[in-house]
Amino acid sequence: MKRTGSVAEVRQQVKEWKKQGLTVGLVPTMGYLHEGHKSLIDRAVKENDRVVVSIFVNPIQFAPNEDLESYPRDIEKDTELCTNAGASLIFNPTPEEMYPNGFSTNVVMNNLTKELCGKTRPTHFGGVCTVVSKLFNIVAPDRAYFGEKDAQQLAIIKRMVADLNFDIEIKGCPIVREADGLAKSSRNTYLSAEERQAALVLSKSIALGKKMVEDGERNAQTVIDAMKKCISAEPLAKIDYVSVVDALSITPIDEYKGYVLTAIAVYIGKTRLIDNFIVDIDTL
Amino acid sequence: MKRTGSVAEVRQQVKEWKKQGLTVGLVPTMGYLHEGHKSLIDRAVKENDRVVVSIFVNPIQFAPNEDLESYPRDIEKDTELCTNAGASLIFNPTPEEMYPNGFSTNVVMNNLTKELCGKTRPTHFGGVCTVVSKLFNIVAPDRAYFGEKDAQQLAIIKRMVADLNFDIEIKGCPIVREADGLAKSSRNTYLSAEERQAALVLSKSIALGKKMVEDGERNAQTVIDAMKKCISAEPLAKIDYVSVVDALSITPIDEYKGYVLTAIAVYIGKTRLIDNFIVDIDTL
Repeated sequence: MKRTGSVAEVRQQVKEWKKQGLTVGLVPTMGYLHEGHKSLIDRAVKENDRVVVSIFVNPIQFAPNEDLESYPRDIEKDTELCTNAGASLIFNPTPEEMYPNGFSTNVVMNNLTKELCGKTRPTHFGGVCTVVSKLFNIVAPDRAYFGEKDAQQLAIIKRMVADLNFDIEIKGCPIVREADGLAKSSRNTYLSAEERQAALVLSKSIALGKKMVEDGERNAQTVIDAMKKCISAEPLAKIDYVSVVDALSITPIDEYKGYVLTAIAVYIGKTRLIDNFIVDIDTL
Repeated sequence: MKRTGSVAEVRQQVKEWKKQGLTVGLVPTMGYLHEGHKSLIDRAVKENDRVVVSIFVNPIQFAPNEDLESYPRDIEKDTELCTNAGASLIFNPTPEEMYPNGFSTNVVMNNLTKELCGKTRPTHFGGVCTVVSKLFNIVAPDRAYFGEKDAQQLAIIKRMVADLNFDIEIKGCPIVREADGLAKSSRNTYLSAEERQAALVLSKSIALGKKMVEDGERNAQTVIDAMKKCISAEPLAKIDYVSVVDALSITPIDEYKGYVLTAIAVYIGKTRLIDNFIVDIDTL
């Protein structure tokens, strides 16, 4: 497996593959790869002849007060995981390679960003859309893989791909969890032992909400209240949001109807974690 | 020559060409084609195996008070010009094909848009960047052709292509003029006979400014003042701007030095016309 930080090298490699008629999958990541990322790479390897994993802690999707500097990095361990998973190429550019002097262009999303994480992270998704557009143009993959854990991000990327006519198939992949239920996240590494235990309240409240809906509850506020109560019972947890929204438009809804995303963000100490469940009421 | 309004059809046609190893040039236009557009198509035909001309009066680059509705259109005449020039495909989508319900994404340019046309048309270049990104993704050309008459647009497109890593070569083509000097523009059709005569003041002031610089004048304000005086002598003319800027960054400069754009926008009656000259002082 090859690793390069050069846009030109990635481009040349992909062109060679395409000349040979090979299909290419892209898994965009910020590195510090875990089982969740591995599930994306595994699926990409299954569905494409060649897989590119990008590893880039994208500065423009972090606000000044956020954890850009402390975000965990381990390129050697990541390389091992990618190699074992059967990826063909790691693209790990420097910030200077991605945002050279004079950089002036942004891709912005006008809807789908007002709720959930967009509320507390108003510049986040613009940074995501911009870097993903760049990665799409650099790699020109046939398919790109994103986790359903970042459900709002996935909805936004799908909207962006449709709006800007990227000729790329977007694949959402299910949340991967630890044995005790905690959704895998590179940020879990921030948690102390005590916080790690407290963090279980996220998946616990998600399981509770999901069960209520599966058992027939259709009132969003009733589910939200129950989940909030569940989370509030944990002293180390501080709720950012518990929201029920249309899973495609990311607009709040009062009633479970159609394709619905129930999403939460909770601070455990200083660490902000997210989790969610999606239900399609029509096929429940 | 084929004409279609369907994104899917364009994409399929271009993919067939690429499978055959053919190169593709794109000439993005708003239609009502004139000799200026023809010079772009001619060059594209010379440099590529196949040429796509897009014809789309892009609503999102017009402000509410601008001439979207009255912008001239003549698809049959345009088709004839493209056929004669040797283009292979016209892409003339409807606004609904380009901006379906729920459209939410914009490509914005944070620099290069504060001066010149960006001052009086603050939303214009966002609309241009968005539609050109879409056209680039739909057609996936090897090269795209833009007129130097829209010098700020050309600088912005080049910046966007570099920033978002579009794998497309951008070619700027010289201004084409009427016999008497007026720069060709679809908007020239708005002019009455009297205004048509008055409009000569644009190319006259451009020629004056250019001569001053070629003769050794390096003070931007001196050139601007002389050009403004020239334009103001015409009673039907109202100056929007006369500006001297760095041709790449579109930032004002006091002195002619390096690669310099001198650009003007002038209302002749209700019609807003632009013209410019670019000099590379180092090679003058």
